[in-house]
Amino acid sequence: MLEPNDKALLPEGLHDTLANDAEYEAVTVNRLLDSFAAQGYARVEPPLVEFEESLLSGPGAAQSRHMFRVMDPASQRMMGVRTDITGQVARIARTRLKNSPRPLRLSYAGQVLRIKGTMLRPERQFVQTGVELIGSDSFQAYVEVILLAHDALTSVGVGDLSLDLSLPLLVPAICDGLAIDEETTRIVREALNARDVGELENVEGAIGEIARQLLSAAGRADKALDILDGLKLPEQARNMCDELAQVVSILADVAPGLHVTVDPGEYQGLEFQTGIGFTYFAKGVRGELGRGGRYEANAEMDQGEAATGFSLYLDSLMRALPEAPAPETIYVPFGTDLAELPPLREQGYRTVQGLEPANDAGAEARRLGCRHLWQNGKISPLG
Amino acid sequence: MLEPNDKALLPEGLHDTLANDAEYEAVTVNRLLDSFAAQGYARVEPPLVEFEESLLSGPGAAQSRHMFRVMDPASQRMMGVRTDITGQVARIARTRLKNSPRPLRLSYAGQVLRIKGTMLRPERQFVQTGVELIGSDSFQAYVEVILLAHDALTSVGVGDLSLDLSLPLLVPAICDGLAIDEETTRIVREALNARDVGELENVEGAIGEIARQLLSAAGRADKALDILDGLKLPEQARNMCDELAQVVSILADVAPGLHVTVDPGEYQGLEFQTGIGFTYFAKGVRGELGRGGRYEANAEMDQGEAATGFSLYLDSLMRALPEAPAPETIYVPFGTDLAELPPLREQGYRTVQGLEPANDAGAEARRLGCRHLWQNGKISPLG
Repeated sequence: MLEPNDKALLPEGLHDTLANDAEYEAVTVNRLLDSFAAQGYARVEPPLVEFEESLLSGPGAAQSRHMFRVMDPASQRMMGVRTDITGQVARIARTRLKNSPRPLRLSYAGQVLRIKGTMLRPERQFVQTGVELIGSDSFQAYVEVILLAHDALTSVGVGDLSLDLSLPLLVPAICDGLAIDEETTRIVREALNARDVGELENVEGAIGEIARQLLSAAGRADKALDILDGLKLPEQARNMCDELAQVVSILADVAPGLHVTVDPGEYQGLEFQTGIGFTYFAKGVRGELGRGGRYEANAEMDQGEAATGFSLYLDSLMRALPEAPAPETIYVPFGTDLAELPPLREQGYRTVQGLEPANDAGAEARRLGCRHLWQNGKISPLG
Repeated sequence: MLEPNDKALLPEGLHDTLANDAEYEAVTVNRLLDSFAAQGYARVEPPLVEFEESLLSGPGAAQSRHMFRVMDPASQRMMGVRTDITGQVARIARTRLKNSPRPLRLSYAGQVLRIKGTMLRPERQFVQTGVELIGSDSFQAYVEVILLAHDALTSVGVGDLSLDLSLPLLVPAICDGLAIDEETTRIVREALNARDVGELENVEGAIGEIARQLLSAAGRADKALDILDGLKLPEQARNMCDELAQVVSILADVAPGLHVTVDPGEYQGLEFQTGIGFTYFAKGVRGELGRGGRYEANAEMDQGEAATGFSLYLDSLMRALPEAPAPETIYVPFGTDLAELPPLREQGYRTVQGLEPANDAGAEARRLGCRHLWQNGKISPLG
């Protein structure tokens, strides 16, 4: 038998957001979406649930074990609750917006739900928002998207931002160019991803030397680029590094305060990416604020097209913001002419009406947590 | 085997909202929440899923057959996907905000999901937003909440509003006061709810006469109130009618353009209500825009308190609005100095950057659907 208080408990990893925090999160999401809209990204709003196969197609496949499923009585088919919105946006681009001109700029925001939280992200439900720039494999698309994330994060007040850049396909490109066997490629790739110095010491030949240099390159962008610049790399890998250097150089111009790092060997969680990957962090905040990169949207459909985008996660993003500001509330005693309220609201006050007569309007206002009192046609601040 | 296009199909009653429509809906929800906040309602954001028993407690019980369920692997207990947010708000008031001063003003907005749509509301997922004013059984609470819904709907541009008022407990109160037996009470109540003239013709005595008058009262508020006023009613029922008349009179003052009707015998869908119930409609729009009233929040908890509130449904509400306005987009050709873009955005333009050189910037801008072109430091409108 559950007691009322037990009944009220929420499942692990799910929570109620209250009052100023809830409003602050909503306002923050709106500001992010405004930043996206201001750069031509059109909002799409896919449903919370859709057929399982749709959600699990392409990059979504990795989400299978994180996804809640429900049976749809209408179709007798399994539906999933989305764990990520990116795949839904790709689906929309492929179907309903198939004939819209490219590049297609789409933005989204919505709740996602996961069966299990992680160490860094214990929440099982959070708001994901972001953009996809679909149908361009240009260099400029990286610049636009990385800077847009930066603008958006800055616009909502996140300070002390850092950006980590990676090239998940660099090591495969190097190994491919040097005709390295599959097993060695795997060892090098995994060791670099895990930053395992010991493992790399045993790798012989040019690839061993390059791998050790790549490992030492991880860190501040200027140092990393110097090291990458000094490496003798196969052409495709060299192009990747040059593109990365170009991004870093533009960022230094446009966002000089941004702390940029490079991790050339990282690929975990970026398995579907095909170019430069990036992750934003804020100093002292657990978990990344967002990540992005380029991938082949709808690759399995034979109509693949390059998409560059990012997702921001509101759980960690809200942790990077200062406390929610308290609103300016004003108590309007019972019996006040209703016509007196709109002008107060136009001045930015939130009116709290007395529903019954109170002996001491000031005390009643304080009891309700109001910061001002409307009395005799005047606004009195309450201490 | 599903073809790509089949895979992309969404389950019945679920849909993607695109571009201007998606943005317009989001902007509309924000404006509604701004209206609620301006009158002191604090936002709460409960999770999409929680334990089944929580969602089904109290008025939520009626939602059982509409609710998708998932097993929570963490607790090994069933969770439900919410079909309605009102009960979650009551839960928050009862638990985390138990010690907050009353009356408590809470607002909310979020997606709800239902197993099956209805004729009037075929969508299985839609946004519900609204308020609850908890812990006051005052008359003024009705006035505040009914007018707040009116203000909010008007603020987002819904025109031609009508408001239907009902007293779901009026007939029980009359029958109780006249000591009418249970079976006759049931017959009268159901016949009035169904507006079944024939059934009422056979009801004898004073209750028969009153019931036929109540039926004839349904319609325009002034006519309805005249009829109600002429009835000889038991005291509790008389008080209800007087309260209703007072609400109508205030509305006539404050919102003279609002078309008000009264249906004194209606109770369907209002089973949990304890006072005046109200429903907003817009002329020519299928389905109600929202409904509200008073109910006993957390009645089963032995800590019941009166709550007055309403919910608005964004599916029907969006049908009551004019078409979404198209944004002012401006094409900024490839190679434009990035520093030239922010001033354009500050003027309200949405910048769309060229990612690669185009031979004819104007043609490229048109191809992308832009309405303006930025060239040689000037804004040129495109025909």
